[in-house]
Amino acid sequence: MHKLVLIRHGESTWNLENRFTGWTDVELTPLGIEQARQAGRLLKAEGYDFDVCYTSVLQRATHTLWHVLDEMDRTWLPVVNSWRLNERHYGALQGLNKSETAKQYGESQVQVWRRSYDTPPPALEATDPRCERGDIRYSKLAPDQIPLTECLKDTVARVMPFWNDALAPASQRGKRVVLAAHGNSIRALVKYLDNISDNDIVGLNIPNGIPLVYELDDELKPIRHYYLGDAEAAAKAAAAVAAQGKT
Amino acid sequence: MHKLVLIRHGESTWNLENRFTGWTDVELTPLGIEQARQAGRLLKAEGYDFDVCYTSVLQRATHTLWHVLDEMDRTWLPVVNSWRLNERHYGALQGLNKSETAKQYGESQVQVWRRSYDTPPPALEATDPRCERGDIRYSKLAPDQIPLTECLKDTVARVMPFWNDALAPASQRGKRVVLAAHGNSIRALVKYLDNISDNDIVGLNIPNGIPLVYELDDELKPIRHYYLGDAEAAAKAAAAVAAQGKT
Repeated sequence: MHKLVLIRHGESTWNLENRFTGWTDVELTPLGIEQARQAGRLLKAEGYDFDVCYTSVLQRATHTLWHVLDEMDRTWLPVVNSWRLNERHYGALQGLNKSETAKQYGESQVQVWRRSYDTPPPALEATDPRCERGDIRYSKLAPDQIPLTECLKDTVARVMPFWNDALAPASQRGKRVVLAAHGNSIRALVKYLDNISDNDIVGLNIPNGIPLVYELDDELKPIRHYYLGDAEAAAKAAAAVAAQGKT
Repeated sequence: MHKLVLIRHGESTWNLENRFTGWTDVELTPLGIEQARQAGRLLKAEGYDFDVCYTSVLQRATHTLWHVLDEMDRTWLPVVNSWRLNERHYGALQGLNKSETAKQYGESQVQVWRRSYDTPPPALEATDPRCERGDIRYSKLAPDQIPLTECLKDTVARVMPFWNDALAPASQRGKRVVLAAHGNSIRALVKYLDNISDNDIVGLNIPNGIPLVYELDDELKPIRHYYLGDAEAAAKAAAAVAAQGKT
């Protein structure tokens, strides 16, 4: 039996400000740091250990992982950063306040952009200062690999090669994997693992900073999954994520 | 021309308490954190950038690197941790106060243990609770790869394979390398790079948290080296390291 632990980063400054973040590289808040440290303490207390760690190239996920590793006395574990684990790109909505956007475009339009499987938000212009195509961390990618917007379907499409090329082979080799990433890159993995339909994934939310454990069989099919710690708190935190797009 | 940047970790709790540390996994002090962050700000201000980072499996070096990367907005760079970059193992002296040890054994004996090239301090017993042979981070090593004590010659012997297998090939491939490590693993590299004699290496000290830049030619022979920032401050800091073994 293989165990895979997924952790959405702790609260970020733009979670707190209720702004669409996407690939914008914002920091953890003090609460976010504490959530990450609590995740690490919980994993340690429950006897979890890891062989290899994965995270995105965004600091809120990397810092979450670092805090987890600090609490587990595992700062020496190998860490792989990949852009494929980044948050869903939020296009021209990046930086906008979620409630303001709901007032301007209507709640239902925002809900479509936030949760529709295959309707992306309006795209960033490549000349927009918010566009990441000049960012050195993506300099080895072809420009058209760097999205101007993404729907969840697009995120699934760029996360899956990383599952196939890195995460699944590591698990198959018996490596104990922890992954610190983002709401939508984790939703992409969960959709694949649990074979969730395009419709049903819309209602699934991932809370910040609570370890989500997948137990997988030898073919890496899920046996079961659960949040570590207080189940009620995890459900409440997921419901709060779902409510962010309301006016 | 290749550039290689070496950084000794910032002040640790046992630097502050003037205790022999070796492979003991102590933390940075608040000053040590600030030294590391200052090193990162200095590297950024001077226009340095990196492709790959190396550090030991001890948290004072890893945290130093993380603070540097934070200040440089480079938390997404690949990081390789290796036990071969650990501090020199200090044997049975690990945990003892340097001044107390000097009073007990005499300054000249302590100076021999601290700075002789080929006389190791008394060895730890394998049954000593301080012995690292049960530490999970070394679980893939053969027990006799995990030292019970080391002289600098021993440290050179285990650092050099890492130079040959990792650091030199990365530099040869044009990668810009930063390495955050320890006084003696850096002395081992400097001894090799500058072809310093066994006698002369005794008088060479590496200050905490000040980037040491080596410019190397295509055969990786040093053209020149220098500390970044205030040269006088670097010299004073190195002199303070040299004075630690006095009563």
